[in-house]
Amino acid sequence: MRWSRSFIPTVKEDPQEAEALSHKLMVRAGLIRRLTAGAYTYLPLGFKALKKAESIIREEMNAAGAVELLMPALQPIELWKKTGRYDVIGDVMIKFKDRHGREIALGPTHEEVITALVSGEIKSYKDLPLILYQIQTKFRDELRPRFGVIRSCEFIMKDAYSFDIDAKNMEKSYKRIYEAYCRIFERCGIPYVAAQADPGLMGGAVSHEFMTPSDIGEDRIVLCSSCGYAASTEIAAIKNDKGKEEIAEKYGDMREVLTLGKSTALDVSTFLEVDLTNVLKTLIYLADSKPIAVLIRGDHEANEAKIKNRLKVGTLILAGEERVVEETGGAMGFSGPVGLDLPIYADHSVKDMINAVVGANVRDKHLINANHGKNYNVNEWIDARVITSQDACPECGGDIKLVTAIEIGHTFKLGTKYSDPMNVHVLDENGKERQVIMGCYGIGVNRILASLIETSHDENGIIWPVGLAPYEVVIIPVNKNDDHVTREAEKLYLSFKDEGLDVVIDDRSQKSPGVKFKDADLIGFPVQVIVGKKALDQEKVEIKDRRTGCSTLVDKNNVIDKVRDLLNVN
Amino acid sequence: MRWSRSFIPTVKEDPQEAEALSHKLMVRAGLIRRLTAGAYTYLPLGFKALKKAESIIREEMNAAGAVELLMPALQPIELWKKTGRYDVIGDVMIKFKDRHGREIALGPTHEEVITALVSGEIKSYKDLPLILYQIQTKFRDELRPRFGVIRSCEFIMKDAYSFDIDAKNMEKSYKRIYEAYCRIFERCGIPYVAAQADPGLMGGAVSHEFMTPSDIGEDRIVLCSSCGYAASTEIAAIKNDKGKEEIAEKYGDMREVLTLGKSTALDVSTFLEVDLTNVLKTLIYLADSKPIAVLIRGDHEANEAKIKNRLKVGTLILAGEERVVEETGGAMGFSGPVGLDLPIYADHSVKDMINAVVGANVRDKHLINANHGKNYNVNEWIDARVITSQDACPECGGDIKLVTAIEIGHTFKLGTKYSDPMNVHVLDENGKERQVIMGCYGIGVNRILASLIETSHDENGIIWPVGLAPYEVVIIPVNKNDDHVTREAEKLYLSFKDEGLDVVIDDRSQKSPGVKFKDADLIGFPVQVIVGKKALDQEKVEIKDRRTGCSTLVDKNNVIDKVRDLLNVN
Repeated sequence: MRWSRSFIPTVKEDPQEAEALSHKLMVRAGLIRRLTAGAYTYLPLGFKALKKAESIIREEMNAAGAVELLMPALQPIELWKKTGRYDVIGDVMIKFKDRHGREIALGPTHEEVITALVSGEIKSYKDLPLILYQIQTKFRDELRPRFGVIRSCEFIMKDAYSFDIDAKNMEKSYKRIYEAYCRIFERCGIPYVAAQADPGLMGGAVSHEFMTPSDIGEDRIVLCSSCGYAASTEIAAIKNDKGKEEIAEKYGDMREVLTLGKSTALDVSTFLEVDLTNVLKTLIYLADSKPIAVLIRGDHEANEAKIKNRLKVGTLILAGEERVVEETGGAMGFSGPVGLDLPIYADHSVKDMINAVVGANVRDKHLINANHGKNYNVNEWIDARVITSQDACPECGGDIKLVTAIEIGHTFKLGTKYSDPMNVHVLDENGKERQVIMGCYGIGVNRILASLIETSHDENGIIWPVGLAPYEVVIIPVNKNDDHVTREAEKLYLSFKDEGLDVVIDDRSQKSPGVKFKDADLIGFPVQVIVGKKALDQEKVEIKDRRTGCSTLVDKNNVIDKVRDLLNVN
Repeated sequence: MRWSRSFIPTVKEDPQEAEALSHKLMVRAGLIRRLTAGAYTYLPLGFKALKKAESIIREEMNAAGAVELLMPALQPIELWKKTGRYDVIGDVMIKFKDRHGREIALGPTHEEVITALVSGEIKSYKDLPLILYQIQTKFRDELRPRFGVIRSCEFIMKDAYSFDIDAKNMEKSYKRIYEAYCRIFERCGIPYVAAQADPGLMGGAVSHEFMTPSDIGEDRIVLCSSCGYAASTEIAAIKNDKGKEEIAEKYGDMREVLTLGKSTALDVSTFLEVDLTNVLKTLIYLADSKPIAVLIRGDHEANEAKIKNRLKVGTLILAGEERVVEETGGAMGFSGPVGLDLPIYADHSVKDMINAVVGANVRDKHLINANHGKNYNVNEWIDARVITSQDACPECGGDIKLVTAIEIGHTFKLGTKYSDPMNVHVLDENGKERQVIMGCYGIGVNRILASLIETSHDENGIIWPVGLAPYEVVIIPVNKNDDHVTREAEKLYLSFKDEGLDVVIDDRSQKSPGVKFKDADLIGFPVQVIVGKKALDQEKVEIKDRRTGCSTLVDKNNVIDKVRDLLNVN
């Protein structure tokens, strides 16, 4: 490609709206442009990188035995009602009425569509296993689109779906895709961990999130360096505390204190000069619409995913002001377990709290010296909080750390969540009808590029691995008015193309060498071939490795070999 | 690919909802499935053919110097208001409000988006010419989706946009894309004509429609076999008739006759026993909201595109009942030019009408012996009708024929229709600001497959050209329980793959040879390699050419050469 004939609008300054480094670099390097909130155009260079990511995904999915197809974005709403997800997906799904009044959704995901498709077509165990996938555009009306293509309203996803005769075979399909994902992210040069995760809206028992640790990550994961345990904080179990010894003599007398306007645990702890670990938070939730109380230590964070799973409820929503008043008789921020007529679930760590501060269920009042078993009772002790870095590894008991991460892929074991309502069954070897067992598997294709850039750059710009680079090599003729330079650069360009190298020549006549060097570093082509007059006079050209920044002068007849060597190690 | 591991659900019976042959065959051959009105899933085989069409398009567009990018489907409505197309596009554009109340369109086309994109980025004549394209999903809320993927609500389009410094250079870009289109359709094996066409909503002066003649075509084109003239009937000019001689002595006396309920020209002609060519139709239009009358001979059809262009109006709408009564004083179906107080435009052919029957502007009454110049006056004689096969070729005067056709591509010279409101200009060599001249160019990728099938099939199924075929070769082991057959078929399969042939092996254990042969013909793989026991005993396999239906026995060691020979001629 000739740079002058392409459309590579690089930018010197960081775009104002960008928070994430990858977003800034993608705009500056001329990879993307924002069209509207959460919708980006992939410019020619960004598009090329995207296609390379897609190729890697396609090769590995095909090698894993998955077969590609393409489903529409337009989906009839009836399918979502059939699986019951219409009621839970909420505003994130874009819906509209067509000219005939039919309600249509813009697919945020395709479990319903693929299950309905397969339902009519597979009949026998001989049609299984079946793994289908697509690389297709998804739509989500994000509350807060951000970080460029990382959280956008329109994005490209590779979504795959497996169909098996039983759980044992589903595990095999799951493993094949899991391993394909590992190969994909390795080939893309993206650091990742496969963390155990909560299946959430997708349903099913177990899932894995493929996560790239990054400061801008919107998810938190737990990592154990001793045993390799990795899990989403949503799911990471906490080693059950032993529970306090009953030392009744330590119990103080419970009494009411005035805590004017102090409605958070932190405010109360500061105001009463007690440790935050001795303030009890009482959260009023609606669990499938029924009110419950959940007790959490002041310095801990409630883990709604774990509570939901433990209580086996579909929805868990914090009660609003009005409902809190109705259920507790008090005010928002002053709830407590004493005298509360609701099912009370307490986190295990609450067992150790002696003489705790709790809400009095009266506005502006708390109780001190509250003790469970004495002043209030707990219906059930559960694991209800988010793990902290002070907790032990759930697997080995070793030290853990919490990091934020970008989710780049997710694998789910769905079981019969979709095949059941859609009635997908086949006949087994004995002619018996069997419900099909499903799995589903997603990769955010856009996020591959953004995550790569988040984790692979320097102060001058992006550092692409060869597999994803928009072009593998850039040729930069330095002295634009020198015929010899122009001629040799052109000759090299044509010979590179003949050799099948993915090359661009920076033939922009209006740009100085300085600008060309800066742009080459900013975009991050793995190899730069610099053709200058002085070196040419010695029959040499300069070759620069973007990753190391090292340059070497090479005999102009050996350029291709040297370039190939560099491409092989990058 | 192993058939048993893919997802190729062939069907014996024609699907009930399908009208077009291509639609029937695409469903039966397991290429597509309908999800909802106008939205289809491409199954693995359909997807592969689609990707092959895309590859051909991509190669030719790149060779023409166009550069690929990818724009979002989500478009802010403001862009459509800026160019004024928001008011004219109507219900075909899908719109919805996002959770923040912003009105968003699902792009039916991308002139606005690409122009806004380029606007901020190109500055100098050195940035031009620029041709950008994408292969991307479009959305249109079709009134009547039909013919499978031919007229659907979600479809894949290759849309390209050219930017040039002046009209002369735009012509060069236009010619490059025009020629690329010819190569694309030739490589896809689709018969086509490039017909002159009306630019319509796109705007600009001249356009070409690439049309595949077909019975199910929704457009009509004029073809001249003498000079090669090809045009849409919307635009095909009619050789100006000389006009009648003034033979006033032939004029009868005009008088009123009762024509109870006869409100169409045909009804009136039958009822009064006069030739249809002597009944005058008077059509009341609102041209940019102003009422006008257009006179057309009874057997002719008004051509609204030509009238609109001639009158230089943005909208031309037939007046409704109420408005007709208001403007003529009479009733719908009984309008006439005599005493009518509206601007009257008459088609040239009306000049020859002597003693015509015209509406009386009174319900249930017509006038006979009406003559222009005597009983009514025409403000302007224009070319206002659709050409017929009785007319002469507008270019050479030779015989023409009218055929229906499927539009598979369209090229437009846009001029400054978009660069003007979007303010896209560059500095020329003299530092002077110049408005950029644009062109735009579309190909319906889905329609390539459907048009190919419409024009290339036999009673057994589809006949693919090698370039588009889902697989080039199918290997059919006939005797599934014979180890020798299975082993040799497998060996061939692996050697074909090694040779880089695009091959599928029909390893379905549950299917009879008859079903396999039928499916192979139905899907239409160009070459079938049939491995049977009897032939194998003579060290031979059978090779069948799908197009000719001819089979030959070939030494099993020469199979690859023979297959390659066949692929080269198909």
